[in-house]
Amino acid sequence: MTRAGGGRPVLLDCDPGIDDAFAIMFACGHPDLDLVGVTTVAGNVSLALTTANALAVLDFAGRPDVPVISGCAAPLLRPALDGSTVHGEGGLGAARLPRAAAGAAAGHAADYLIERVRAAPGEITLVATGPLTNIALAVLRYPPLAKEVAGFVIMGGSAGRGNVTPAAEFNIACDPEAASIVFSAGWRVTMIGLDVTLQARATAGIRERMRGLGRLGSDLLLPGLGGYHGDPAAPPPPPPGRWLAPGVAGAGEPAPGAMDGMPTDPLRDAPPVHDVCAVAFAAKPGLFGCLPARVRVETAGRWTSGMTVTDFAALPDQRNALVALSIDVAAFWELVLAAYARTPPAAGPG
Amino acid sequence: MTRAGGGRPVLLDCDPGIDDAFAIMFACGHPDLDLVGVTTVAGNVSLALTTANALAVLDFAGRPDVPVISGCAAPLLRPALDGSTVHGEGGLGAARLPRAAAGAAAGHAADYLIERVRAAPGEITLVATGPLTNIALAVLRYPPLAKEVAGFVIMGGSAGRGNVTPAAEFNIACDPEAASIVFSAGWRVTMIGLDVTLQARATAGIRERMRGLGRLGSDLLLPGLGGYHGDPAAPPPPPPGRWLAPGVAGAGEPAPGAMDGMPTDPLRDAPPVHDVCAVAFAAKPGLFGCLPARVRVETAGRWTSGMTVTDFAALPDQRNALVALSIDVAAFWELVLAAYARTPPAAGPG
Amino acid sequence: MTRAGGGRPVLLDCDPGIDDAFAIMFACGHPDLDLVGVTTVAGNVSLALTTANALAVLDFAGRPDVPVISGCAAPLLRPALDGSTVHGEGGLGAARLPRAAAGAAAGHAADYLIERVRAAPGEITLVATGPLTNIALAVLRYPPLAKEVAGFVIMGGSAGRGNVTPAAEFNIACDPEAASIVFSAGWRVTMIGLDVTLQARATAGIRERMRGLGRLGSDLLLPGLGGYHGDPAAPPPPPPGRWLAPGVAGAGEPAPGAMDGMPTDPLRDAPPVHDVCAVAFAAKPGLFGCLPARVRVETAGRWTSGMTVTDFAALPDQRNALVALSIDVAAFWELVLAAYARTPPAAGPG
Amino acid sequence: MTRAGGGRPVLLDCDPGIDDAFAIMFACGHPDLDLVGVTTVAGNVSLALTTANALAVLDFAGRPDVPVISGCAAPLLRPALDGSTVHGEGGLGAARLPRAAAGAAAGHAADYLIERVRAAPGEITLVATGPLTNIALAVLRYPPLAKEVAGFVIMGGSAGRGNVTPAAEFNIACDPEAASIVFSAGWRVTMIGLDVTLQARATAGIRERMRGLGRLGSDLLLPGLGGYHGDPAAPPPPPPGRWLAPGVAGAGEPAPGAMDGMPTDPLRDAPPVHDVCAVAFAAKPGLFGCLPARVRVETAGRWTSGMTVTDFAALPDQRNALVALSIDVAAFWELVLAAYARTPPAAGPG
Repeated sequence: MTRAGGGRPVLLDCDPGIDDAFAIMFACGHPDLDLVGVTTVAGNVSLALTTANALAVLDFAGRPDVPVISGCAAPLLRPALDGSTVHGEGGLGAARLPRAAAGAAAGHAADYLIERVRAAPGEITLVATGPLTNIALAVLRYPPLAKEVAGFVIMGGSAGRGNVTPAAEFNIACDPEAASIVFSAGWRVTMIGLDVTLQARATAGIRERMRGLGRLGSDLLLPGLGGYHGDPAAPPPPPPGRWLAPGVAGAGEPAPGAMDGMPTDPLRDAPPVHDVCAVAFAAKPGLFGCLPARVRVETAGRWTSGMTVTDFAALPDQRNALVALSIDVAAFWELVLAAYARTPPAAGPG
Repeated sequence: MTRAGGGRPVLLDCDPGIDDAFAIMFACGHPDLDLVGVTTVAGNVSLALTTANALAVLDFAGRPDVPVISGCAAPLLRPALDGSTVHGEGGLGAARLPRAAAGAAAGHAADYLIERVRAAPGEITLVATGPLTNIALAVLRYPPLAKEVAGFVIMGGSAGRGNVTPAAEFNIACDPEAASIVFSAGWRVTMIGLDVTLQARATAGIRERMRGLGRLGSDLLLPGLGGYHGDPAAPPPPPPGRWLAPGVAGAGEPAPGAMDGMPTDPLRDAPPVHDVCAVAFAAKPGLFGCLPARVRVETAGRWTSGMTVTDFAALPDQRNALVALSIDVAAFWELVLAAYARTPPAAGPG
Repeated sequence: MTRAGGGRPVLLDCDPGIDDAFAIMFACGHPDLDLVGVTTVAGNVSLALTTANALAVLDFAGRPDVPVISGCAAPLLRPALDGSTVHGEGGLGAARLPRAAAGAAAGHAADYLIERVRAAPGEITLVATGPLTNIALAVLRYPPLAKEVAGFVIMGGSAGRGNVTPAAEFNIACDPEAASIVFSAGWRVTMIGLDVTLQARATAGIRERMRGLGRLGSDLLLPGLGGYHGDPAAPPPPPPGRWLAPGVAGAGEPAPGAMDGMPTDPLRDAPPVHDVCAVAFAAKPGLFGCLPARVRVETAGRWTSGMTVTDFAALPDQRNALVALSIDVAAFWELVLAAYARTPPAAGPG
Repeated sequence: MTRAGGGRPVLLDCDPGIDDAFAIMFACGHPDLDLVGVTTVAGNVSLALTTANALAVLDFAGRPDVPVISGCAAPLLRPALDGSTVHGEGGLGAARLPRAAAGAAAGHAADYLIERVRAAPGEITLVATGPLTNIALAVLRYPPLAKEVAGFVIMGGSAGRGNVTPAAEFNIACDPEAASIVFSAGWRVTMIGLDVTLQARATAGIRERMRGLGRLGSDLLLPGLGGYHGDPAAPPPPPPGRWLAPGVAGAGEPAPGAMDGMPTDPLRDAPPVHDVCAVAFAAKPGLFGCLPARVRVETAGRWTSGMTVTDFAALPDQRNALVALSIDVAAFWELVLAAYARTPPAAGPG
């Protein structure tokens, strides 16, 4: 199952998507990972675009041998959310990669995932960085999947606040029913959620280093980040003595004074690269600090649909997830940039 | 409306409850506040107990002149939650105050609140530190109430995680429909939620200073805190490289090793005093840093009922709350302990 | 409590509305009923209009002595539904009554209901023919109300299908949370729902008899019915062998043939007079056949909000309602027309 | 695709279950139907039992050539409901059939349904008489299925009241999310619900005729019906003047008198045979009268989950179902008994 050079076999289910594209590049470049297949799902953009993007990114990475198999074109029960305001019309921000030479392989993503895992029980790590529709379909069709993977890591959810709504993260909010099925499937889901992905941001310093990566930096990473418009995270709390609502009945306090807008976010110009974190966990879990928890996905709430309700106080036998809560940001970027330095486009003309 | 010595008139709707008792004592002791009345609601314990406790605390504070009027014995649509595991069977932890000489005043809390506010439009600050059942009834019965208070401050909710469930704080979770009514009533709710109340904890140093408060410390504050069993907040995140679920497929990482339990919470022995924060805001808003937001209360969720879904990105005309996000903890305790030093029991025999 | 002539004292909480107006006229005309007060609520039209209409109808009935007290201008938690497409912009269909000489009495409907019932425990029958917002507020404020009425009858709900949606009847759908509170208040609710009100229709023969009622017929009843556009009840089932969807894979059956539209409803030109049925129950319960049941009001459903989920198999101690399922239609109309013949406008110039 | 003798090819997805067994027998016996395969799902009893029962019934019918393929062992998102109180521990009431010689075919029901329909687009009628889990999985995995069947008929749902709850019918209530997926899949679902199945009951006269069917009657039909404990439909409405709640405030009416229990149901001893109706529609749609409608499945309601909310007033392009509302009961039973008379066990020793 592993390549000649070894490496842990990884199946990646994704919806490229800027950060999905970054995650594919990372999986191609890291020496300990063997990307054996990519499946696509509707999410950040339509299934047709996520599939075309996955193919284009693999071509760009010099890995046209990795098969791409498309899956579900819509969530299980709901209309699709539209992520194109974040990821651009084409899904890769301002990046414009050449169209891949070949198309997707035949078959359905869910069937492909089942077949690959069944063929090598206990060996393959499954990583999902999009809505969990394909994964849900796979575990419904073949429940033993949950026991036959070597590990299952998702980018999705949050133990705290969301991004697409105050309560929910995009991937889970897209298809809460699929996520509920997946979290109840009997495996331990490693949840790489906003709790850590919002910490690992591509600051100006990181972006400067990306400029040294040749075509990978100039053609994908930097235009991708440049075209990314997302994650309006909550602003940092104002210091005591400051508040921003006019007309509050103060008790002889000085007026709020100069603060007449929202406080500026020092990380506003440092976009996160969510999906890369999930693949980075597969490569080097020691980058993360995690706690076990019981995660339930809200499917019925009026304002909370798609929230990953994370109970750290659940009894051990109720825990279904390992939730990442801290990340060694510096080590993460070293790992990622080193992997990027190894992929073919890095050697090409800039 | 104000006492001879001046002071901002305050009506307190509460469910004593340990921290409600502390809040009453603070309101009695702070020189800028004039506690004009106390209304009670079922919450931490039954209505009969919250009413008896409010009366006993006011007697203990040397303020039997403050009228106590009882209100709703149950949430609007739901059975009551039971807070006695946190606040003890009697509701005041291990504190045992003498029963008050007089009983509650006639009438219903909602009617009383309406009458007092109507009698002095624009003058009274309303503070609610229990489930919002009484307040909901009052604004339903008399919608102009929302315009006639000088301010409205609650202890309740959270912009982040909850305490009674991962998503919901106790006061809001008790009566989500009442909270939804209250947040939609047309006023700006100052929400003093877990975001700040979990910061202002009664550490060992604070408790040591309480010992110098005579009978207030020995008969109420310390036995109250000693009998408080609550707020199993999420443990702090483990450092990277640590996780706590057995059998995670590591990538050549060292085993988690010695960490075989949940990390210890350094604040576990430092209980919060939630409700005091809300009255402290009425006395000195400059202790807090706040942001305006749109708060919606989830009433339909399966796992999220009672969550205060807080949207800081809401357009200005949709904002219905001012959400406290930071607190000057040292200044808070100075304010609180100074007020406590002024109340009669402090002068009594310890 | 009763008038000189005797009669059972009745309080009517309503939202006139065409059929509410008819119900007021019936209560004024029936010799065994003593209409002691009318309270109004937003529903079919706005609170201002329902109040004005109640006053105008009582003037028209020669009963300006009956006090009208207005209540809630909106449902507890939801925006108001708009019933004006059914009841006309003014709320009385095509009827145009003179504006009443006097206005509403001071105070709030909920307070008034409480006061009147408390003043004569066990004597007053409460009838509600609009959304249950006022009644909910009254039982929340004064829970013993549920034990102190002589009876409580509503027009609302259905044990079968709805009218405003396939699942919900208008009055309950307007304010499901209020209805849930009311059905849980500890009394036995007599539910006069669509199960019976859709049977008692104003056929052409009934309308012909209304023409003999002088100004009551010409100025209120007939223009009211003429302006009524409602209750698109399900069409009667087609006979076997008929279906109306094109392209159904028949098994050698003849094509549906001539049936290319929905089957006509023989009662389409015979509007119901829902609210009159509830007051008729107060006057003569023997007109109805009822079964005890457990009624729960759905507040959380996506497509079913406001449904009265009626369980006839509930254990006796769980039953909270007496649900009318049959009606002696002929006797009902005799009773109603006889009462109408007794009201003053009938004697006036046609 | 059709047998030598012709006949419309039918795939039956079911959960035998007494009436599923009757439906299989009918499909085997009707000359115009060709039962090409049976798939099983958890529902009335566990998947292991529904599969074993399907195999046993086909053996009993002399049709061991019909393949049986098992599918989903649980609903998509929920724990299974237990129907064994209705269908008996084994699922066939008091009937005890010999265990089948062979087992289920390899593979998964959803895959099998997809394969068979794709192999003969436009030819196969799909009939589902259990929870819709398998069908949902099939249309999720292969959305064109909805266009490639010749017809799709379900036993399930109701345009009126339910049976497992006042709002929901058992098959839909078992897996509301699956039903929601299926009703939204783009085909026109023929819904044979309680509206018609409760009309076609096995009265004493019908059961007498079953006695003439040899072993089919003695070994399956009669012990099946005898062991069936279900469908506590609402009792018929009492006549006017009767009600059954003690202490109702009558208006001088005579007391309810002798009626101190629920009215007896004349059909209580005449059990319905729900699933047979769905297969009968496939054989002879002219037995039924149907109306087109928009059916939405409630998945979020507290008391209404699994209800098929049926809107007959939906615009034509919103209609997704053809809802059976009437049935020619006499012709139905002639059809069914004639088919039964043709199956091999009828000729065997009684």
